[in-house]
Amino acid sequence: MGPGPSDIYPQVLQALSRPTIGHLDPLFIGMMDELKALLKYAFQTENDFTIAVSAPGSAGMEACFVNLIEPGDKVIVCRNGVFGDRMKENVIRCGGEAILVDDEWGKPVSVEKVQQVISDNPDAVLLAFVHAETSTGAVSDAKQLSQLAKQNGMLTIVDAVTSLGGVPLLVDEWQLDAVYSGSQKCLSCVPGLSPVTLSPLAIERIKARKTPVQSWFLDQSLVLGYWSGEGKRSYHHTAPVNSLYALHESLVILKNEGLENAWQRHKEMHILLADGLEKLGLTFVVEKESRLPQLNAVYFPEGIDDAAVRQQLLEGYNLEIGAGLGALAGKAWRIGLMGYAARKENVALCLKALETVLK
Amino acid sequence: MGPGPSDIYPQVLQALSRPTIGHLDPLFIGMMDELKALLKYAFQTENDFTIAVSAPGSAGMEACFVNLIEPGDKVIVCRNGVFGDRMKENVIRCGGEAILVDDEWGKPVSVEKVQQVISDNPDAVLLAFVHAETSTGAVSDAKQLSQLAKQNGMLTIVDAVTSLGGVPLLVDEWQLDAVYSGSQKCLSCVPGLSPVTLSPLAIERIKARKTPVQSWFLDQSLVLGYWSGEGKRSYHHTAPVNSLYALHESLVILKNEGLENAWQRHKEMHILLADGLEKLGLTFVVEKESRLPQLNAVYFPEGIDDAAVRQQLLEGYNLEIGAGLGALAGKAWRIGLMGYAARKENVALCLKALETVLK
Repeated sequence: MGPGPSDIYPQVLQALSRPTIGHLDPLFIGMMDELKALLKYAFQTENDFTIAVSAPGSAGMEACFVNLIEPGDKVIVCRNGVFGDRMKENVIRCGGEAILVDDEWGKPVSVEKVQQVISDNPDAVLLAFVHAETSTGAVSDAKQLSQLAKQNGMLTIVDAVTSLGGVPLLVDEWQLDAVYSGSQKCLSCVPGLSPVTLSPLAIERIKARKTPVQSWFLDQSLVLGYWSGEGKRSYHHTAPVNSLYALHESLVILKNEGLENAWQRHKEMHILLADGLEKLGLTFVVEKESRLPQLNAVYFPEGIDDAAVRQQLLEGYNLEIGAGLGALAGKAWRIGLMGYAARKENVALCLKALETVLK
Repeated sequence: MGPGPSDIYPQVLQALSRPTIGHLDPLFIGMMDELKALLKYAFQTENDFTIAVSAPGSAGMEACFVNLIEPGDKVIVCRNGVFGDRMKENVIRCGGEAILVDDEWGKPVSVEKVQQVISDNPDAVLLAFVHAETSTGAVSDAKQLSQLAKQNGMLTIVDAVTSLGGVPLLVDEWQLDAVYSGSQKCLSCVPGLSPVTLSPLAIERIKARKTPVQSWFLDQSLVLGYWSGEGKRSYHHTAPVNSLYALHESLVILKNEGLENAWQRHKEMHILLADGLEKLGLTFVVEKESRLPQLNAVYFPEGIDDAAVRQQLLEGYNLEIGAGLGALAGKAWRIGLMGYAARKENVALCLKALETVLK
């Protein structure tokens, strides 16, 4: 019950250990086509370019930034936690100019501030924000932020690492352009893959580039040659065959449950957990209306030995919870309720174990 | 029996599906320390910086290039197949200047040509070459090439994707500086990880950089904070936990067999296979003295329907062999004898199936 990797579905671990076949084998190519369709469902998009980057979420993030930014581009970056800061780092390393919109850790991105910064910077071409901040557990209003960007002719880059599968994320309806996620959060698949979807506008922007993408490995125009369903697949890099089996399986589970049911389950388990945590006297970092059900950041009582408590939980109860990250290090814990972990038995275990250890 | 992913050891698939634990869990950190020690054995190095990049070999390649090159650096790149060409692409995307040393596909890198180009370019700072070209099956003399570089104060970047575990690769003895490999070739682990080792000289060069590494995900000074054994591990990205279990297991198998025995086994199986292939009238792309035992590129007879034969092998015999890549596309097959696949039963199956299908 940490901030990820989450508990993996047993069926996903089974799928993972299926015999490895060639990454150009017709059977495997067939599975990839299914995987694309399942990812489109999870993202609620019709984007043709919907794939899994062969590396963790951080590489998915970088894939979006290096493909969409050219040196000199002005990018508005919203920063209300660790991952917004990492976005800024990406912009700079692409030779872009990052205009920061800062919000306090634990607060959602302020729509008003973004509106102001956009009107102050009419030449900005991209708006980048984190939908669900894994470092604080705050969810931001992706729909409104995207609207602001669209009204000003900007494209969006959206971090959906922790949101995909856990809370509503409607890529097409909200008109998001470049969205990346991770396999190891609410999909309850093994870590190591990053689902990415790019809108036709994003693809257009990539095709119009004047400079080559600085990363060969993450150059999505090359990757497309392998993932594209049309004609012959061309080799780009060796696909992580077994991890892709696992992602396929986790998405089949999500589709069978139904996205809306999965969102509802995360919400219900969160209410149970939050209620219990508050009874234990723990207070949430995030205000009620912006809380992510799948990532519960709570301040621990003063005088508590943070590491000792987490060690007792791990050794005595086989239970992992996450330490605070960045501004919350040494102040808060992060309790995940992601994917397969969002079950009553986990909530009960966590509350009882915490109650006992904190006595 | 393609050019990779190779057959995976059954124990490796079992290890892969062990329950996922947190990437900062003390148990997992302990396994990573063992993994580092095992990688050092496989690479025959004492380099402190010996890790697995959380992505396929192409990302391991890029990790070496983006960390060692700064804009304007002159890099001598040896090109005798697909992967040398990819190295050139990496140099350019890092803002470096690539000086090419071209050799025919199927030939090893010419030591004489490299010597000449080095003396013509005394300001070049790096020499990059492929130890074992997966596109042709030619092995180059890494020891001699490294000597030339050292005599001229240059560092080396070496592609050992297909050589690691299959033929002698002595990183310290040969004084190689940045070496990357892949999990899915002679280690017979699943694809998706890239073992990388950096010499103290390479680390020194990275520390002396004047510009930031253009990739955040592949910035090895940040990655080191997670893999380093000293003190607290800091989070960089979520490690691909299960794939690392698998890599650990495959390296335990290699250590138990013994590196020299593994090299010998690859050689013996290659002799058996080569003998049989020549009896079938197939001729090797590479001269005898430069042949890689683990990657056998042979021209197929004229008038043969390449794709049809490979399909017959796949459907009738459950046997994959690789198509030609780049200059060898439509002219040659690539038959792998990598890791667990380098067994008598595979050689026998391959020879008999080919004999039948080619009749």
